[in-house]
Amino acid sequence: MNNFTFVNPVKIIFGKNTIKHISGEIPANSKVLVTYGGGSIKRNGVYDQVAEALKGYEWYEFSGIEPNPHYETCIKAAALIKEKKVDYVLAVGGGSVIDATKFIVAAACFEDGDPWRLLSEKPKVTAKKAVPFGTVLTLPATASEMNSGAVITKASTQEKLAFGSPLVFPKFSILDPTVTFSLPPTQISNGVADAFVHVVEQYLTYPANALLQDFMAEAVLKTLIIEGTKALENPNDYDVRANIMWACTCALNGWIAVGVPQDWATHMIGHELTAFYGIDHAKTLAVVLPGVMTILKDQKAEKILRLGKEVFGIQSDSASELIDSTIKATEEFFHKLNIKTRLSDYGIGDEAIEKVVNRMKERGWKLGEKENITFDVVRKILELRK
Amino acid sequence: MNNFTFVNPVKIIFGKNTIKHISGEIPANSKVLVTYGGGSIKRNGVYDQVAEALKGYEWYEFSGIEPNPHYETCIKAAALIKEKKVDYVLAVGGGSVIDATKFIVAAACFEDGDPWRLLSEKPKVTAKKAVPFGTVLTLPATASEMNSGAVITKASTQEKLAFGSPLVFPKFSILDPTVTFSLPPTQISNGVADAFVHVVEQYLTYPANALLQDFMAEAVLKTLIIEGTKALENPNDYDVRANIMWACTCALNGWIAVGVPQDWATHMIGHELTAFYGIDHAKTLAVVLPGVMTILKDQKAEKILRLGKEVFGIQSDSASELIDSTIKATEEFFHKLNIKTRLSDYGIGDEAIEKVVNRMKERGWKLGEKENITFDVVRKILELRK
Repeated sequence: MNNFTFVNPVKIIFGKNTIKHISGEIPANSKVLVTYGGGSIKRNGVYDQVAEALKGYEWYEFSGIEPNPHYETCIKAAALIKEKKVDYVLAVGGGSVIDATKFIVAAACFEDGDPWRLLSEKPKVTAKKAVPFGTVLTLPATASEMNSGAVITKASTQEKLAFGSPLVFPKFSILDPTVTFSLPPTQISNGVADAFVHVVEQYLTYPANALLQDFMAEAVLKTLIIEGTKALENPNDYDVRANIMWACTCALNGWIAVGVPQDWATHMIGHELTAFYGIDHAKTLAVVLPGVMTILKDQKAEKILRLGKEVFGIQSDSASELIDSTIKATEEFFHKLNIKTRLSDYGIGDEAIEKVVNRMKERGWKLGEKENITFDVVRKILELRK
Repeated sequence: MNNFTFVNPVKIIFGKNTIKHISGEIPANSKVLVTYGGGSIKRNGVYDQVAEALKGYEWYEFSGIEPNPHYETCIKAAALIKEKKVDYVLAVGGGSVIDATKFIVAAACFEDGDPWRLLSEKPKVTAKKAVPFGTVLTLPATASEMNSGAVITKASTQEKLAFGSPLVFPKFSILDPTVTFSLPPTQISNGVADAFVHVVEQYLTYPANALLQDFMAEAVLKTLIIEGTKALENPNDYDVRANIMWACTCALNGWIAVGVPQDWATHMIGHELTAFYGIDHAKTLAVVLPGVMTILKDQKAEKILRLGKEVFGIQSDSASELIDSTIKATEEFFHKLNIKTRLSDYGIGDEAIEKVVNRMKERGWKLGEKENITFDVVRKILELRK
């Protein structure tokens, strides 16, 4: 096992009818800014529950945070915080709203020029201060509600970059699975697929003799596989929704990441497809992952074998057969979630490959747990996904 | 899944050569009190590493904290904190030292009479303040290094009671598996057995449709089973020790407890055997657990079946056969750790049963996840363990 440091101070309030607990968490007399997205929270009753819980506070709202949230949008919210002297922010939404809010609360306190430097010049430039914030999660997927990372897109340059700071752990997150009942099936599918790939990025590398982390990663994967399709079949099964919601959180709250190598190549390649073509984040992962597994199958052999046996329950005497079956089972899992896994399924032609490869070349990134996925390996991966 | 609230702010610093990081965690200019036990840390080099890391601080020490730490001892340490105006405490030891330190840091700030009231009059009497503290863990077992609970014994009355407060989460805990190399085999066995039963208390109840928690509990159990005996065979295998150390922490840091019913009858009965006869805590659990499983086997049937299949890998078409085999496998696991599982193995005669039963009767406790283990059920359980 590798040495590690772990801390995650986020308070989770989980279960039915929990949105009312907001008022117990935000200090009295706070000036609150509520951040949210396109307004679905007004249709499903979440907005009303939040408004009820915020009675007695002076509060403002900032809506219109888009999926793959834009730097340009965030900057406006940060300006509103300064203008109104807001001292607590409440993000109500999914990963995009929460990610955006993390950047917003840091940007509002940033005093060294353009806050984009927090992304473009990291790790040299770091957040020194942030407005405290809590979240009400409406879409299980990214685990942003229980970690300190975010991904922000600069629309003007089509760049999608990561941001993180211990200062942007939410103070609390409220997870009420009943608010997910009204989600469209495609958002549930995307969430389950996203969480699945989050686990894979922290698990499907090389053995580090970290037995508990392996078993725990498999615990999350098995839960997502068992409950993922059930959620599509029985949208109103509370326990299924609760298990998915909690599994998505545990997929990226740091618990399974400690002491093990991590990959993240699938995410980095996927981010480019979203930045260029606007494909849903989770769908890009489903396209890219089988390619990463196939091209890296020797390097990842031992862990692919474990995934096949322990998670998918595949038996075979031949290691190479088991590896191929496991890659196939992974792709089929996405299909069971009604997620397509080829570039062409999304109307993306071959020219996309060189576009992504060139971006990787420009950046000089070497991806993956062995830092050996250079731009030419990315080309090989994407060639398999046409 | 049941509604739950979860928070655990403890910072974990895990791995080889990590004791030196103490100085990065304790604020400069703190007056530090180092608490420890019988002095084994002076023989295994841990004391020297701590002293080296504390260079530059004004620091004092309090030694002699015994296993199943005494209220009477803790009170002396609390007085020393007040006398020297200590503002940070560092517990160096196993669960007993850390448990004691939790009570000490709260007792030092308690202003409503005798601090024993924090145990005897809970939940009415609670801690309002505590001196901050960190830990250096030397004995993996109790997970006290990553939770906010403690068990303290009043020697004068042979009472062993629980204490807890969000104020007594350690600020940080340093877990260096190499410091466990020099532990006697019996302490490793005890630690593994203790952690195993911690998981069982949170898992072997009735199904709550909390699939991820079940898989995660099984992850910890499987790790303890696989690595527990290996640790005895190959005492210097770093990864085995690291896996055990981390599994013991994860057994009782709250991760597997969320949203599920809990039992704790085995612990409560075991505590009485320790209080009356001084038997090692873990050994009392190994004595009591098979009795609890047998007497409660109908109530716990579904989870015993899961334990058998998922953790011990037992196959059988007959549910009752599978249940009996699982109870047997549990007892055999303790035997593989060289832990005896009968009262008579510890020279305890039949009179002990009525002694424990009477204590339960006096207290009027109803134990277990269904609160149906009254004193007469305790008698049945212990009758099976003669």
